[in-house]
Amino acid sequence: MLNTLLNHRSIRKFRQLPVESQKLNSVLEAAVRGSNTGNMQVYSIVLTTDAEVKSKLWETHFKQEMVSQAPVIATFCADINRFSKWCDIQDADAGYDNFLWFMNASIDAIIAAQNFCVAAEDYDLGICYLGTTTYNADKIIEILKLPKGVVPVTSVVLGYPDEAPEKEDRLPLKGVVHFDTYSDYQKDDIEKIYQEKENSEKTKDLLKINDKENLAKIFTDNRYKKADNLLFSQKFMEVIEKQGFMNNKQ
Amino acid sequence: MLNTLLNHRSIRKFRQLPVESQKLNSVLEAAVRGSNTGNMQVYSIVLTTDAEVKSKLWETHFKQEMVSQAPVIATFCADINRFSKWCDIQDADAGYDNFLWFMNASIDAIIAAQNFCVAAEDYDLGICYLGTTTYNADKIIEILKLPKGVVPVTSVVLGYPDEAPEKEDRLPLKGVVHFDTYSDYQKDDIEKIYQEKENSEKTKDLLKINDKENLAKIFTDNRYKKADNLLFSQKFMEVIEKQGFMNNKQ
Repeated sequence: MLNTLLNHRSIRKFRQLPVESQKLNSVLEAAVRGSNTGNMQVYSIVLTTDAEVKSKLWETHFKQEMVSQAPVIATFCADINRFSKWCDIQDADAGYDNFLWFMNASIDAIIAAQNFCVAAEDYDLGICYLGTTTYNADKIIEILKLPKGVVPVTSVVLGYPDEAPEKEDRLPLKGVVHFDTYSDYQKDDIEKIYQEKENSEKTKDLLKINDKENLAKIFTDNRYKKADNLLFSQKFMEVIEKQGFMNNKQ
Repeated sequence: MLNTLLNHRSIRKFRQLPVESQKLNSVLEAAVRGSNTGNMQVYSIVLTTDAEVKSKLWETHFKQEMVSQAPVIATFCADINRFSKWCDIQDADAGYDNFLWFMNASIDAIIAAQNFCVAAEDYDLGICYLGTTTYNADKIIEILKLPKGVVPVTSVVLGYPDEAPEKEDRLPLKGVVHFDTYSDYQKDDIEKIYQEKENSEKTKDLLKINDKENLAKIFTDNRYKKADNLLFSQKFMEVIEKQGFMNNKQ
């Protein structure tokens, strides 16, 4: 089991095979067994296998090939809609349309997503998270018909792997773990923490292909640019407001 | 492995035994192996075992006994501080002090937290999430000395269990999973989904003890009250702004 966790690789190429419904069911059972806020389960999982819906999702996820290739797209949503409806029926005053509950519901959704992924990998299925979920959340809401009180937080593509990639590197444990309190990083610390990543063959190849002087600039100039980050920050804030999670005042 | 996931229980009573450092190390290795945004690992884990720091954390987590009892408190933080410092050294223009990256970093932190929990449970250790982390994030920032660019998102108490609670109920799978697109809930659906929960012996006992007419009101009137939710929503929004995650405009 620890091996399943330690052997994780993101899979971006899939065989043209469906996922057996019994297996999918077990993966879902594992997902919902995860910890959640007050056992209120303020999340929903939308499983998309239909070709037409998948094709629309593929467009919003920047046309990444894995989205059209994978037989299943699972969209994990923060969801206070179901719980609030239950409260309404019981004449109970639901007060969950605010940012605290956007956080609680997002945490619930992500814990469910990660259990989903771990269970899937334990079955030799492959997964990859789609960070693009928050970028075009407005379009995903339209495609998946998400009502007020529901916001997509992350997505996972699922299927049988058609590649066997090497393990990705990670920063040394010391670089991300702090003891008792946070020890802020000095220049020396940062240089040590990133040394291996900077000097890897993979990085050298990347610098050549991208004609860049260092790896950090590949992130800031090519992959995750400030202007895009600002645009998507504003868009996502608008989405959570529109979906009714920003009523923070008495 | 699937069994580890399916047998999850939150543990709130711990034996007075430390967690062996080798075990803790494996749990951490599993935590950092999880998927993360662009392999940037924009999170930090603060492991607290020191009695004095733990006692301060216990106060901020509403003096829940498990926080003082458990030998380890792990605080999982969204962290763009380390990555941005690296960018600065490389003369790269880091643009991560915005809400999109608060989301990305929070997702990274929670995936790491859940891998941490699954690995721990696989070792027969017990865990419980502390939802109170976002409530008093300002105080946790002070206690753990978190710099700008770092926000605590969730915490986990860890140790050897001193109780063997029953499995918590969950809503039926059909209640939280949607196929292809979201099917919004009608009154009948909600009643079906919550029927088992409403009629359980546990609920009947709760209603008696709390002198309430239904379970929903125990949530809205006792456990998660609107006024508290609004207060903590405002507080947490202020925290993420103060920590530098709300520079969303050009």
